[in-house]
Amino acid sequence: MHGGGLALAMLAVFGSARLLAELCERLRQPGIVGEILAGILIGPALLGWVTPDPVLDAFADLGVMFLLFRVGLEVRPSEFAGLGKTAVWVATLGVIAPLLLGWAVMRAFGQPTIESWFVAAAMVATSVGITARVLEAKRLLAEVSSRTILAAAVIDDVLGLAVLAAVSSLARGGIHWIDLATTFVLACGFTILVARWGSRALSHVMPRLEAGLRGPDARFTLAILLMFGLAVMAVYAGVAAIIGAFLAGMALSGTAEARVHTMTHGVAELFAPFFLAGIGIHLDLISLVDRSTALLAVAILAAAVVSKIVGCGLGALKLGRREALKIGIGMMPRGEVGLVVAQLGLSLAVIPQQVYGIVVFMSVADAFGPSGARLGVPHRQIHPGLVVRPGKKN
Amino acid sequence: MHGGGLALAMLAVFGSARLLAELCERLRQPGIVGEILAGILIGPALLGWVTPDPVLDAFADLGVMFLLFRVGLEVRPSEFAGLGKTAVWVATLGVIAPLLLGWAVMRAFGQPTIESWFVAAAMVATSVGITARVLEAKRLLAEVSSRTILAAAVIDDVLGLAVLAAVSSLARGGIHWIDLATTFVLACGFTILVARWGSRALSHVMPRLEAGLRGPDARFTLAILLMFGLAVMAVYAGVAAIIGAFLAGMALSGTAEARVHTMTHGVAELFAPFFLAGIGIHLDLISLVDRSTALLAVAILAAAVVSKIVGCGLGALKLGRREALKIGIGMMPRGEVGLVVAQLGLSLAVIPQQVYGIVVFMSVADAFGPSGARLGVPHRQIHPGLVVRPGKKN
Repeated sequence: MHGGGLALAMLAVFGSARLLAELCERLRQPGIVGEILAGILIGPALLGWVTPDPVLDAFADLGVMFLLFRVGLEVRPSEFAGLGKTAVWVATLGVIAPLLLGWAVMRAFGQPTIESWFVAAAMVATSVGITARVLEAKRLLAEVSSRTILAAAVIDDVLGLAVLAAVSSLARGGIHWIDLATTFVLACGFTILVARWGSRALSHVMPRLEAGLRGPDARFTLAILLMFGLAVMAVYAGVAAIIGAFLAGMALSGTAEARVHTMTHGVAELFAPFFLAGIGIHLDLISLVDRSTALLAVAILAAAVVSKIVGCGLGALKLGRREALKIGIGMMPRGEVGLVVAQLGLSLAVIPQQVYGIVVFMSVADAFGPSGARLGVPHRQIHPGLVVRPGKKN
Repeated sequence: MHGGGLALAMLAVFGSARLLAELCERLRQPGIVGEILAGILIGPALLGWVTPDPVLDAFADLGVMFLLFRVGLEVRPSEFAGLGKTAVWVATLGVIAPLLLGWAVMRAFGQPTIESWFVAAAMVATSVGITARVLEAKRLLAEVSSRTILAAAVIDDVLGLAVLAAVSSLARGGIHWIDLATTFVLACGFTILVARWGSRALSHVMPRLEAGLRGPDARFTLAILLMFGLAVMAVYAGVAAIIGAFLAGMALSGTAEARVHTMTHGVAELFAPFFLAGIGIHLDLISLVDRSTALLAVAILAAAVVSKIVGCGLGALKLGRREALKIGIGMMPRGEVGLVVAQLGLSLAVIPQQVYGIVVFMSVADAFGPSGARLGVPHRQIHPGLVVRPGKKN
């Protein structure tokens, strides 16, 4: 009677994503590749079974929020101690290199200035969602390089939003430096505040709240409310909602019980395929059919890949060449961040449909980068979602 | 950047529903009442913070699907053995009584024939969603009366859809008896087939499938696929999607492991408040402001309450008066089923806005019925969602 259309859409997206992930794993390829390919397959690019839709987008947003929340739950703030300086270098050089190289490639192809800046802005920020999913699926969250990647991805999200704000106001007529500086300080302040003192604050507040509540799953309810609460606050502070979700998970990592982990894991497992397939669903190959557009798309993709590996690699050089290369590759995916910038450019009428297609292509294609590479030795798992870290008290 | 609006809506609905549920529990009222009241409070009826929206509706649909799936997981098909005949009587008399009484009340108030039949059709089917939630929250799923209510609610959903199909075709010009009979036989066939042999079929198929899959949460993935698959098949067979979800849960109840229970529980806990608050959000008190409409609304509500208690009670009389009364009260809520029929009537232009408001009022108001009543003695719980049934092997 009702819910039938919804169940069918769920079946199509979730089913095809899980099926292709399974196939990829049998071919010794990572499951993430299969999930994105599933989106390309059933989306408008090939079969056209599903098209981008507000409900599917909401599921994708939930998927990436819960993904980041779950990854946050597995990372202690203390594990980032000592990594801050390197992460800031990785993030900063990893923002400057793609911004300049992207702009240069666009100008070399004879594109107008504003469009060039916009595409460059879309190349700036690493996808925290894809990065987190790859590292989690490869069971590498305990590696130093992985933690550096995560921290740098969070920082470059803040930087990327500042760049985007600057480029958007440039497109609207001029840059308001004071507004920009205020936004930037607010975003940095929020992130640093929650990352540093969130965990300590919760360890005081949570036991009292939990003791006061009567519902059977009060802890899960509180965790969910904290997640959405920090996601909303992150947006007000000028950072992405998923950064808030990640910080909420990290703040709870010391206190959340196993049952909350498993319940959260259920939501993340259900919706993460919508996030990854959703990236494929947004790809429209038809806009890339003519030769010069396809050529520019390939050039932009190459610039996106090279600039992150070189920029982030340089930032991480003091960890050794091997680690620096891992970090550069790990920082490659643009994913949902590139998609959102492309959408914004289209809605502001700053970029035409073809350039939109190029940015989407770049965002989807470089998402495959780190999933194929060997980024480290996986840690032993007791059960899915719980990683044993050698030499760490849990 | 993105996901902020979504996080805010999640916070508003989930947060207010959990908060009012907590308040109600402190006042020794059931939490369900608080969750529906939260929807009325933040919806257009009072504060107007949220309005009915496709994304929120999708969350509500997911919520009721996972709710029914979870309840199905806790019910063994064997527990319905011997209840079939009583349940059929409860369902049948519980359909006939409201249909006739609803029609009579509408006619007595001078309403046209087609409108009268439509409102009567909206009063026919018990809400499986609310019924299941109430019985689960009160930890009564193991009671004989509860199992009778569940079985009867599933059966009367099939009957209710047949009545709705008849009334809709009447509104369109005439009844096609052969079409109706085919639909009815198909719906009954599907429900009986899956309820009877689903569990046995899965106990052969699932171990092989699970052994063949590589993903870390293959069992959860298979459970989800089965749920959405049976939901889609249910709709094709002419039954509601949630009946498919319930049958999927029941078919898996013998084989699903604790981890799948907890992961499913996480999704259900997150979205069930959207289902219950969503019912309140759809209530629009403004359409009931004039005196004659309000009077008719109260009369229809009274007819809805009395007809279910008497009809279902008569059907269950052989279980004793006390049990029969419990079953009658338990079958009262119309909830989402009434809302969907009202929506359909509005879209077919069979009923005007005011009659729509009356049906919505009836559907929301009688949902409070069984939550206040004492329907039995709660069973001991080890942890939320797992009920110890006295004298039963688990």
